[in-house]
Amino acid sequence: MERDNKQIVLKSYINGSPLETDMELKLGNRIKVEAPKGSNGVLVKNLYLSCDPYMRGRMLDFHDSYIPPFSPGSVIEGFGVSKVVDSDDPNFKRGEFVTGLTNWEEYTLILNTSQLRKIQQHDHGIGIPLSYHIGLLGMPGFTAYAGFYEVCAPKKGDYLYVSAASGAVGQLVGQLAKLHGCYVVGSAGTTHKVQLLKNKLGFDEAFNYKEELDLEAALARYFPQGIDIYFDNVGGSMLDAALANMRAHGRIAVCGMVSQNSRTDKQSFRNMFGVISKRITIKGFLQSDFIQLYPRFLEDITGYYKEGKIVYIENMNDGLESAPAAFVGLFSGKNVGKQVIRVGSE
Amino acid sequence: MERDNKQIVLKSYINGSPLETDMELKLGNRIKVEAPKGSNGVLVKNLYLSCDPYMRGRMLDFHDSYIPPFSPGSVIEGFGVSKVVDSDDPNFKRGEFVTGLTNWEEYTLILNTSQLRKIQQHDHGIGIPLSYHIGLLGMPGFTAYAGFYEVCAPKKGDYLYVSAASGAVGQLVGQLAKLHGCYVVGSAGTTHKVQLLKNKLGFDEAFNYKEELDLEAALARYFPQGIDIYFDNVGGSMLDAALANMRAHGRIAVCGMVSQNSRTDKQSFRNMFGVISKRITIKGFLQSDFIQLYPRFLEDITGYYKEGKIVYIENMNDGLESAPAAFVGLFSGKNVGKQVIRVGSE
Repeated sequence: MERDNKQIVLKSYINGSPLETDMELKLGNRIKVEAPKGSNGVLVKNLYLSCDPYMRGRMLDFHDSYIPPFSPGSVIEGFGVSKVVDSDDPNFKRGEFVTGLTNWEEYTLILNTSQLRKIQQHDHGIGIPLSYHIGLLGMPGFTAYAGFYEVCAPKKGDYLYVSAASGAVGQLVGQLAKLHGCYVVGSAGTTHKVQLLKNKLGFDEAFNYKEELDLEAALARYFPQGIDIYFDNVGGSMLDAALANMRAHGRIAVCGMVSQNSRTDKQSFRNMFGVISKRITIKGFLQSDFIQLYPRFLEDITGYYKEGKIVYIENMNDGLESAPAAFVGLFSGKNVGKQVIRVGSE
Repeated sequence: MERDNKQIVLKSYINGSPLETDMELKLGNRIKVEAPKGSNGVLVKNLYLSCDPYMRGRMLDFHDSYIPPFSPGSVIEGFGVSKVVDSDDPNFKRGEFVTGLTNWEEYTLILNTSQLRKIQQHDHGIGIPLSYHIGLLGMPGFTAYAGFYEVCAPKKGDYLYVSAASGAVGQLVGQLAKLHGCYVVGSAGTTHKVQLLKNKLGFDEAFNYKEELDLEAALARYFPQGIDIYFDNVGGSMLDAALANMRAHGRIAVCGMVSQNSRTDKQSFRNMFGVISKRITIKGFLQSDFIQLYPRFLEDITGYYKEGKIVYIENMNDGLESAPAAFVGLFSGKNVGKQVIRVGSE
């Protein structure tokens, strides 16, 4: 059986911020909805696709990073939740739901099935939305979990600040920190997001960084005692402002630099000397280095969610054709919560 | 018995780089060469005074650091090696040598004797110069020891780069790293220093950073495989260049920022994104946080020195009046090795 297969293709490597016109919707070749014998692959129908800031790095013509760039003219690759339509891998059966790397298209033949995780039906049954497997229970959730517990060295009573706090990672960092007994302040870029942080996500305080002329002064207002942990999703001037407000022996987990348009944007710091005088640790990390903790993460976070201890906010857009705009919107803060594209029905 | 007591006084808080004219030689009041009964203090004759870059921070009108600023009009305080002339503390006897915080003057009444360390005569006897107790066996040596072993997480075979490599701290970092089985490259600011690094201090390679137009390219030349450990004494553009050349999971121990004229000089970085992609740890430290290791440090380094495994280069200037110029020279790299002022004879 052959089907049409719409795809989102990267037209060429980007310069600076990604634009919708850097990508295009293509019809693609008609695809045989089967996993060829001997391929050991699975043919999946993609249901939800994940828009993640790290993907911007794969749109650059830079081949020396931890993950190779996309190829111009090729379909964009990313995390997704998919349904197995046909399988040549005995570990996966038709009708099962899986999550892992797939393509921004309707149907994908996934040959590297070892990176797929089967979504247990009973999890789905007890009320965890399928799409959460690319958010709360996927890479962004695991980034928050590994970053908070393994990089931040959190203690009860610590003062924690997280930027991009309502995003896919930040919202979970703040909630985990609250469960750990930290005092938690987050920043975001709209009044609506600030309200969500305080009212729905349980942050102690939150502020709109776009309304602050002086980020150092803003942080000093929210942290008169100083910051023990800064979970940094944005880099640049916010990182500098945090440096000025860190306490002695403070920890900065550097998770993202969404404020930076390129790998080599100049970032200016006035407060770098504080790294010495306050014995600050700045530590960059990738969730993939902690992958041995993934089973524990799934168990912990599934448990917290079932017990009603955490919530998760998604920004769901409909249709593969909405993906380029949704992706680009990540970098101007258009999304409220984890950005997901719904491309197919279950 | 009263004596004249020449002193070096800080005239006023500095702006930017310290100048000789920020300090002045004063005759001071005549001093009674005795430790008053009931003072529990010791009256010492100062023999060697230490010029250390951290003292610049105490010349600034900034009261929120780990150590309070000097008071304008007062005698400068710093580490020294001194001889006890009179004692009201039963732990110290006339004629003994001590090291610790003293003043930039000929005679000092030290009331806080708990911070003094007695120099064992037999150490002195077996050929360790007294002045080494403010260098190799003093704060700078301990900074190198604690920074290398406790902050850098060194492994045999690691590629280590140290800036200001012929200085009081850098020269020991490089030698300890060689003993640990690392590949060691240092940078310094003159051909003479580069020769010392290679020929006397046993570095694998060394270069004159002032002759390099492109620091990133220079480091790439000396570390084609990349840098595992950067022991940073200078900050600024060298730190940025090192970031570009770090390997995955690299460690940067931030010990000093001698290139920066003030606490809030703007430092620009183009390579900060590497902190994430290469999972770099940047860690500032102060030796004082590791003080419990001091006894082990003294034993280890004394042992290495006696066995001929390490050497130590000093820049000795004569006379208290030479102190301001010697101190200022630290920041233009005039010193070759640890800068010491000889103010009295043993």
